[in-house]
This record gives sequence, structure tokens and C-alpha cells, in this order.
Amino acid sequence: MSFPSSWITPPRQPDARFFGQAARRQSVLTKPAGSLGRLENVAIQLAGLQGTDKPTLKRIHISVFVGDHGICEEGISAYPQSVTAQMIANFANGGAAISVLAKSMGAALEVVNLGTVADIAPDLPGVIDARIAPCTRNFAEEDAMTTEQVSTALAHGDAAAQRAADSGCQLFIGGEMGIGNTTSATAIACSLMGKNPLKLAGPGTGLSMAGVRHKAEVIISAVQRHDNDDDGEDALAVLKAFGGFEIAALAGAIAGCAARSIPVLIDGYIVSVAALIAVTHQPDIRPWLLFAHRSAEPGHQAILAALNAEPLLDLGMHLGEGSGAAAAVPLLKMACELHNGMASFEDAGVSTREEHRDE
Amino acid sequence: MSFPSSWITPPRQPDARFFGQAARRQSVLTKPAGSLGRLENVAIQLAGLQGTDKPTLKRIHISVFVGDHGICEEGISAYPQSVTAQMIANFANGGAAISVLAKSMGAALEVVNLGTVADIAPDLPGVIDARIAPCTRNFAEEDAMTTEQVSTALAHGDAAAQRAADSGCQLFIGGEMGIGNTTSATAIACSLMGKNPLKLAGPGTGLSMAGVRHKAEVIISAVQRHDNDDDGEDALAVLKAFGGFEIAALAGAIAGCAARSIPVLIDGYIVSVAALIAVTHQPDIRPWLLFAHRSAEPGHQAILAALNAEPLLDLGMHLGEGSGAAAAVPLLKMACELHNGMASFEDAGVSTREEHRDE
Repeated sequence: MSFPSSWITPPRQPDARFFGQAARRQSVLTKPAGSLGRLENVAIQLAGLQGTDKPTLKRIHISVFVGDHGICEEGISAYPQSVTAQMIANFANGGAAISVLAKSMGAALEVVNLGTVADIAPDLPGVIDARIAPCTRNFAEEDAMTTEQVSTALAHGDAAAQRAADSGCQLFIGGEMGIGNTTSATAIACSLMGKNPLKLAGPGTGLSMAGVRHKAEVIISAVQRHDNDDDGEDALAVLKAFGGFEIAALAGAIAGCAARSIPVLIDGYIVSVAALIAVTHQPDIRPWLLFAHRSAEPGHQAILAALNAEPLLDLGMHLGEGSGAAAAVPLLKMACELHNGMASFEDAGVSTREEHRDE
Repeated sequence: MSFPSSWITPPRQPDARFFGQAARRQSVLTKPAGSLGRLENVAIQLAGLQGTDKPTLKRIHISVFVGDHGICEEGISAYPQSVTAQMIANFANGGAAISVLAKSMGAALEVVNLGTVADIAPDLPGVIDARIAPCTRNFAEEDAMTTEQVSTALAHGDAAAQRAADSGCQLFIGGEMGIGNTTSATAIACSLMGKNPLKLAGPGTGLSMAGVRHKAEVIISAVQRHDNDDDGEDALAVLKAFGGFEIAALAGAIAGCAARSIPVLIDGYIVSVAALIAVTHQPDIRPWLLFAHRSAEPGHQAILAALNAEPLLDLGMHLGEGSGAAAAVPLLKMACELHNGMASFEDAGVSTREEHRDE
């Protein structure tokens, strides 16, 4: 088996000159210094990552990675596993939240099917067949994935990054769907960060308090079992131990975008865990990431802190699919438009603070 | 003198049936209950206020109210007073933040000039001549406005609400510009809420710590002087005491929109103080208000708390002009699009949580 080169080779670092140039432009626009708050930072970050004076977001690529989870045998989700396949049809038919949001912002949306337990109709529009297996294995009993499955899933993510690059994409959003995947993500996060699953496990799609407790206990037991392995705690071993296919593909897509100098807007809990895997594996990926929103899933904060990330939105969302990232896109677009379109004090003939000081 | 009828007559209350209907629709869309977070509440609120199944935001009206402040004699701003008039030209020429944002969202933008110390060019496009005086009087020494000026300013705000209604507007945003107006707004807020100006005064456009201290002392002294008057502490007396023309016009516009059943998206510090005036005067106005963002101006939180408001965004913005409200508009639009466009569990053939429970 072989890993994508984007997973092996560190990405180039963004050119610092463009950040400095953008910061200087922000300082001469007709507004008190800093008064656009985080919209100023976003514009500077996008200018730096895009390597341009005038950052734009005309072409956005959304890939939603979908996969089923063997851990569902342990009764850790409020919804039946059949929902994963049903939602692929809903994405394709335009009825899901991310379908509505992608259409609203004129973004390209593709669904990457890494394997579902229930069958899906063939030839659904916008669905890429990347099936690895019907689902991962139950990580309460054994590793969720083989090493070959991990490398295949990473490659499917890298392929999405390549398609994004081929389309001239200026921002990549990875989304996910997979009943049971907050359990997988929490096991990964706890293993990588040395956190107690009782602190990070949350209701996911809507577990009761008793359900969350059971989910945490399943994760505690699995993390302990895995700690006794000889694999070591590197990101790849943790990914292999707990899955899922869609989380591995997301990590591959994030690395693939960084390798191709495409900024990535990180969604909520699951995608942040995929980002944690990618950045733990290769810290040079971190500068290419922007963070969209703080999920209502209680463990998200710890993952954001580990990534030194302060997301733009905090709206109590916890849907997945990339919906929280999509919700932040208009803020990124407005940040660019303000950066590019506002007049400078000099152009507009508006007095600056400094002139006043000299009076 | 006479007050606008929208200021005297309580507005009708929104029809509760539409809120209930919208909440029921949210519960059958293909997502875990509550997983769109505050976007669900926003859709329900807009459906209820618009009195419709399918809320939309195709026509948005932005009025930026501009006026100068006599209190500038006390040296309470980081910028010279001439900037107020200069910014009117910048609004008209499309170079200001709100100009860029209004264009980006396809909103109608008008500037209502209530009086500036410096002259402005005649016939600037989109600027309405509503000049009351070159500026308010210095409230460190006397009332900022006469009662007639208050009623005239309220009427100018009401006229903006009428123009919004005439255009079929579905959402109104009031913005403001006026060097010195955080000092005026802080004096109003402290008077209405019984707060210490040392707690609420902030840097505005960028005062130093010493500048903020001086500003707070100016406000303390003026609030004490006013408390000795016979006016009583009703909203109108406080408005008359501290100004400004643009704050009074904003209060009039807010009341005018509520009277015409137009939802109002409240911007930051200054506009929230205008909303506090309007709601203190007439509590039935409150249901018509949505709150866009938390300003970096430190006193904003106390004003939001008094209005029982939890804004959508917290981006460290403190520009004014209605820019924080404009930044939140895409979230409102997405909330409507999700509400109207997502498939139900039944339509999409997706299993619900309840079916799983019965398994």
C-alpha cells in the first residue's frame, strides 16, 4: 500500500509578504483601526493564503464524505444506521441542509460515498463511488480499519482536493455524514489529547444523558484496549484504531488541500478531529486552516484549543455535513469585499486620527 | 409640535400562530432536532414577524442616520468632527464599509443627514437632506436638543420607516455615523439603566485609557446635572438631554418599523441604545427586533442584557454605520433558505429517531 504524497511531504508555507501587505491595506481603509474586528483578520489571512492583494471567494468546493461505523453495534447513536445511506440520497436530491447552503452560495457540492451498510440507488447525481467496505469494524472489539483501508481513505480525500484544485477552487470545505461518527471522533480526540472520554463525549445527534454515559464507557474501554497495543500513539495508528472511513478521508483532503495551497474552512466536531489528525501528523498543515464555528457538541472546545483555533461563529449548531462551515462563508466573502472595496482615508478625503492629534 | 403616531400608538403584536407553525416545520426537517442551533430560532422568528410559512429577505432597507454632537467641545473623540461630513461623501461614493456591504447583499442604502458642522457637497446621491441644526448642543452645559428637535428627529426616523414600507421591505437596518455619538449614547444608557458611566464608557473610535476616563467623567457630570432637572427620567427626557439627532431618528425609525410590522435588525452600541429608548418608551416594540452582533464597545453587553437580547455574531466589530447588522444578514437569509428548502423526513424517506426507538 502507498500513502498519498500530500500525506508524506510537508506543504509549503504561505508567503508572509502578502499577510503584511494586507495588514497595511486594512490600516488605511476608512474606519477606526480594528473596527471590523475579526473580519479584518479573515481578509488578511485569505490574502496571505491566496498570495494576492485582493482575496476573493468565487469558487468554493464542498466535499461531503460519508461512511458507516461498526461501533454502531454498541448502541451509541440516537438514529438507526440506515440513515447514513438515506442521507446520501437526500444530499443528491437537494433536500439536506448542506445541499440548500451550497446552492445558496453557488458552491460546488460533491458527496464521496466511502461505504454504507444500507444500499444506495446507483448513479445518484453528484455522488462519487469510493466504497471501501459497508462499514468500519467495531472498534470496541478490534481496529476499525486496516492500514490499507486507512491509506485508501486518505487517497480518496486527496483525490477530492485534486478535484477542488482542478476546478480553480479558492476555498475547500469538507463535510461528513455517518451515524456513529461522534463516537469514533471522540475516541480519536481522547487518544491524541490524553483526555477523559467522560469529558469529551456528547449527545451527537441527540442521545439522552444515559446514552451519553454509555457512549463514554464504550470509548473508555476501547481507548484502554488500544493503549495496550504496540502501535504507538501516532495519528495514523489512532485513525486506524477508531475509524471512520469519512474521518480518514477528511484528514486526507485537509492534507491534500494544504499540499495544493488551498485554504480549508474547518466545520464542527468531526472535521475538527480530522484536522487534529492531519495537524498532529504534519504541523505545517495548520496555517492553511480557518475555523468556521463552535459546535454545540461539548467536546469541540477542547479540540479547538488543541488546534489553537478560535472559530468565527457560535450558533449552537451541531448538524455536521459541513453546514457550520457553509454558514461562515458569507462572513469570509464580506471580509474580502470590504478589504477590496472600501476607500482609503486618502482616496476618500477623510481625516485620520493622526491629523487630529496634530491639531 | 407633534410626535409621529408610531411613537404614540403601540404597535400590533405578531401573530403567534405563525411562530408555532414554523416551529413545527423545523421539527420535521431532515436534521437532528435543534441541530441548526440559532438558525432555527431566526427562521421561526422571521416567519412569525412576517406572518408567513416561508420567510424571505429579498428586500432589505438600510438607513444610515448622521448627525454631529455638541459634546465634541469636551474632547471626547479620537477623530475630528469634520469626519462626520466627510463620511457622508464616502457613503455616497460607495467607499464606506456599509456601502460595500449594502452592495454585496443587494440592499437599498440611504443616508439621512440630520446636520453636520462641516458643509457637505449638495445633491450627493442617496443622501436625504434632513438637517435640523449643524449639531446638537453641548450636553455638558445644557440639553442637547429642544423638544421640537426631538420630535423632528423622531419624524425623520419615522419617514425612513415609511420609505422602507413603501419599498416592500422585509427587514430594516438602521445605521449611524456621528463623531462623539458613543458619548451621547453612553449618557443615555446610564441614565435609563442607572449605571455608572465608568462601567459603560469605552474607547469608541479609539480613545486611549486616559481618554476613556475623561469621557466617563464628562458623562458622570452631565448625568448628575440632568438628574437635578424636573424632567423626570422618561425616555424622551433622556433623549432630549443627551442627543443626538441621529440617535433620536433611529429611535423613531425603530418605532416606525414596528408600527408598520417591519422586523428590525439591530446593529451595535449606538443602535442598541436607540432601541433601548424605543423599548423603554413602548415595550410592545421589543418583539419586532432581532439583534445582529455584540460590539467590542464594552458597555454594549449591559444594554443587550437590559433588552434581553442575545445577538448572533460576536466578531469584535465596533464600526457603526449598521455594518454589524449587515454582517449578520447572510445568516438570516440562510436560516430562511434552510427553513423553506430542506426536505422533511417523510418527503426524503429518511428514518427518524422515533422509528429507531420502536425497533
